[in-house]
Amino acid sequence: MPNTPLRVIPIGGLGEIGRNMMIIEYGDDLIVVDVGLMFPEEEMLGVDLVIPDFTYLRENAAKLRAVFLTHGHEDHVGALPYFLREFKCPVYSSRLTDGLIRVKLNEHRLLNESELHVVPPGELVQAGVFEVEFFPVAHSIPDACGLIIRTPLGPIVHTGDFKLDHTPVMDQHTDLIRLAQVGAEGCLLLLADSTYAEQEGYTPSEQLVGEALRNIMVNANGRMIVATFASLISRVQQVVDAAAFCGRKVFVTGRSMIDNVAMARQLGYLNAPDGVIVGVEEMRNTPSSKLVVITTGSQGEPTSALTRMANGDHRHITIQEGDTVVLSASPIPGNEQAVYRNVDNLFRLGAEVLYNRVANIHVRGHASREELKILQGVLQPEYFVPVHGEYRHLVVHARLAESVGVPKGNAFVLTDGDVLEIDEEEARRAGRVSASYVYVDGLGIGDVDQQILRDRAHLSTDGVVVVIVSVDRQTGRLDRPCEILTRGFADVEDDFSGILDRGKDVVANSLAGADHYAEFGDINARIRDALAKFLYDETRRRPMVLTVTVEV
Amino acid sequence: MPNTPLRVIPIGGLGEIGRNMMIIEYGDDLIVVDVGLMFPEEEMLGVDLVIPDFTYLRENAAKLRAVFLTHGHEDHVGALPYFLREFKCPVYSSRLTDGLIRVKLNEHRLLNESELHVVPPGELVQAGVFEVEFFPVAHSIPDACGLIIRTPLGPIVHTGDFKLDHTPVMDQHTDLIRLAQVGAEGCLLLLADSTYAEQEGYTPSEQLVGEALRNIMVNANGRMIVATFASLISRVQQVVDAAAFCGRKVFVTGRSMIDNVAMARQLGYLNAPDGVIVGVEEMRNTPSSKLVVITTGSQGEPTSALTRMANGDHRHITIQEGDTVVLSASPIPGNEQAVYRNVDNLFRLGAEVLYNRVANIHVRGHASREELKILQGVLQPEYFVPVHGEYRHLVVHARLAESVGVPKGNAFVLTDGDVLEIDEEEARRAGRVSASYVYVDGLGIGDVDQQILRDRAHLSTDGVVVVIVSVDRQTGRLDRPCEILTRGFADVEDDFSGILDRGKDVVANSLAGADHYAEFGDINARIRDALAKFLYDETRRRPMVLTVTVEV
Repeated sequence: MPNTPLRVIPIGGLGEIGRNMMIIEYGDDLIVVDVGLMFPEEEMLGVDLVIPDFTYLRENAAKLRAVFLTHGHEDHVGALPYFLREFKCPVYSSRLTDGLIRVKLNEHRLLNESELHVVPPGELVQAGVFEVEFFPVAHSIPDACGLIIRTPLGPIVHTGDFKLDHTPVMDQHTDLIRLAQVGAEGCLLLLADSTYAEQEGYTPSEQLVGEALRNIMVNANGRMIVATFASLISRVQQVVDAAAFCGRKVFVTGRSMIDNVAMARQLGYLNAPDGVIVGVEEMRNTPSSKLVVITTGSQGEPTSALTRMANGDHRHITIQEGDTVVLSASPIPGNEQAVYRNVDNLFRLGAEVLYNRVANIHVRGHASREELKILQGVLQPEYFVPVHGEYRHLVVHARLAESVGVPKGNAFVLTDGDVLEIDEEEARRAGRVSASYVYVDGLGIGDVDQQILRDRAHLSTDGVVVVIVSVDRQTGRLDRPCEILTRGFADVEDDFSGILDRGKDVVANSLAGADHYAEFGDINARIRDALAKFLYDETRRRPMVLTVTVEV
Repeated sequence: MPNTPLRVIPIGGLGEIGRNMMIIEYGDDLIVVDVGLMFPEEEMLGVDLVIPDFTYLRENAAKLRAVFLTHGHEDHVGALPYFLREFKCPVYSSRLTDGLIRVKLNEHRLLNESELHVVPPGELVQAGVFEVEFFPVAHSIPDACGLIIRTPLGPIVHTGDFKLDHTPVMDQHTDLIRLAQVGAEGCLLLLADSTYAEQEGYTPSEQLVGEALRNIMVNANGRMIVATFASLISRVQQVVDAAAFCGRKVFVTGRSMIDNVAMARQLGYLNAPDGVIVGVEEMRNTPSSKLVVITTGSQGEPTSALTRMANGDHRHITIQEGDTVVLSASPIPGNEQAVYRNVDNLFRLGAEVLYNRVANIHVRGHASREELKILQGVLQPEYFVPVHGEYRHLVVHARLAESVGVPKGNAFVLTDGDVLEIDEEEARRAGRVSASYVYVDGLGIGDVDQQILRDRAHLSTDGVVVVIVSVDRQTGRLDRPCEILTRGFADVEDDFSGILDRGKDVVANSLAGADHYAEFGDINARIRDALAKFLYDETRRRPMVLTVTVEV
């Protein structure tokens, strides 16, 4: 098809962190890279998850050929069940990613009807006009991959989440040789991870963390408790290795950690010498100095095992003096308060606590600026689109690319919904498609809108006041004093200040002169305005005032 | 009084950040150091401020001799108006601190009845049995001081907030010579700032920031906009100095920045050559390359000048390509999201944005670990209590003190309400006094309690559902179908799913068999339980369900 443009359309993950999803389209074919979810931001009150907007896919469902998943983290695969409920197409991923999504799809009772394929690096997958190859990258989960997507206009490289780690723990390097081959061939477009584009220098190797953990373990006299991400299998491996080295037993706790450790051992991603990982009984019979506990809760999640330990209500583990707790993770922005509350509580219980601010016990999974420059140097792409990150990360990443060789004007800072068109001559912005936040709240998908979030914010600030007015059917006058009910507004149980009693007078006065012919809507508005003003004058608070008029 | 113990009682600021207040008591005399406020944490929904608990002071009001304020930041002086509404006693502070609290007390109409004293460093103030001397410290506001408090048992040193800066901007060093004299004499007790006790090394000097700002300004071709804390007068001075050096004019915006700059110039804390600081008219007539704007909003405050610029609705300043915006501040924990949203929006408008992650344009106002060690070395106190900080800061600071000479067991990690007693022989914990959070919400002080915050949290998550049931006076049966009103629950406007209609049936069924003799409370509970269960089964949400029964 001469002059058919290639279209690149980010639906999620550009200008925000999480719910990554990218559409690549050429003529009648369309593929999707990642279908992630985002955890709600502060102001998304009561929302459980945020998923990508599938509107454009719905409108172009006939073109959909396949989904490719770069790795098994929630922000890249978490919305797959919502996607597969609506769309039928093959899903391609690496072995561990496949194992993780099978668990997830099984929970959603979608496993049997899904078409899942494991693709080893180097193998080619044909999806319409596209030919797609996975290549290994180093990241904070095993089997993470980037994609080489061959299109009629040339190859696209999508890094997924990555860093360059020359001494990784699971022996998975980012495959620079394969990338250099694509670079030699001529890379049309690079899409690269921007999460740490602000960070100068290099991201340290996972190896450093292993050494630090071993040093701490050798020097600790008592029990050691290590909290990290359940998906960070390489970190778990490092703890197990250190434990085996020190002759300690390992007890695993926290539901997702137990599940992931079991799955990783079964698939061969975690190697533990016989007898090192033990159950509850053996744990109880092991002296503290010979024990390591691996647990969830590094982000301060309220129901996690570590939070329960910190609150003194874990079933099996009671924190005591002599324990060393290691938080082998950095707080994800937004989680700081919960994480540090746990640290404080663990200190209160007498534990020694090592966390990111006082020890080098975690490294990031994303490339820093010098690594991003190497990537540019190896690929020398004609066009560049920074992906994964908030707007400022994309801007600084685009500038970095231009500073090391991407032709001026060929680095495009897109955000969710922007369409980039590339043809033989040039690349250009070409309008926008729908890319809203879609909120999942309980069983509801997309039924929580901005109005509902505004109402929740209003309710959260000053509570709710409900006024019930009985109006006489004949006269249109108040039949009896109104009732006023409040929650979250002020302590009015004994109404010491008489605010409710005076509020009832205000309501009565607001209706003076009303008659039966007044509309109920009008009566309600009058009461609401009068009472809201009275309450504000009295308290400088603005509760949500709801009025109900009952005709008797 | 032989064997009278000295009592040290933190009421706020130990185990938390903010609302600093410390009581020091001996026999019939009691003094207060700082009366600060705290900004509400995430879960304190709708709360405006948190102030210290004055219960113990109320019970011991007859002993109260004086208040001493270390410096003019809100977390040290912000609750003074609430304090002076209840208690009468002289207030002692340094010159700038006095200027700042006068503004505040005037707003609260408390200035005329307050007894305020300016105390220069070195002068002695007698307060009952205590003799108190201010000594200068380097911090992020001019005229910050620590206190030397002489007691019958020996001198106490309270650092306030401090760092050691050998090249400060306003020429105020921490007075190590005076401290060494107290150390030589024998320091009974040291109370020292723990805010950065986790931070290895030294806090860099303010001078570095001045150099960085000047470099940026020299190299910027367009307008430069600098946001910082309004109280950080030394930073404003640095910007003015750099502007004068580059031949730029300075325009000041943001209410608190305008007020503080005016006050600081008037009191001589800010020196600007004639004609450098300009008004709106002259600003408009100055070319961009000759202009610097100093503004509030470095913390992303929603109504601040910088946030308005970032949102494109500032009255005088429209961000454009060529502008360089410098955020000369670090986000205070909890403010990250708001700060980075501004950064993203400023980038979107085409500005170059320099912020803490990409440039060295801010230094902290608190001492790091090596500075804290120097303090210990100079004072060699017999007892040590770390102050100002969350629990973990206090723990690591206490360990630091013991590692450099405080006798084992003589460093006490106290938290709010703990009482430390010191006599001739020893120091010991001696019970607790009331030290709750006191919430200020609108005009209400202390009337928002845990129940109200729980209700607000509940409302914020899934909204509210109000059911109004009319019961026939004679039969006790439903008189007509109930009404259901929701806010923040789900989009039920058109009730596509019929959830409200079915909910009404659920309510009706829950009352089947009820008669007039059933208590209203019982009827309400039955309805509430049935409807809450139905809504949860349908939506997996748990709105607050309020039931009102009207008898007709």
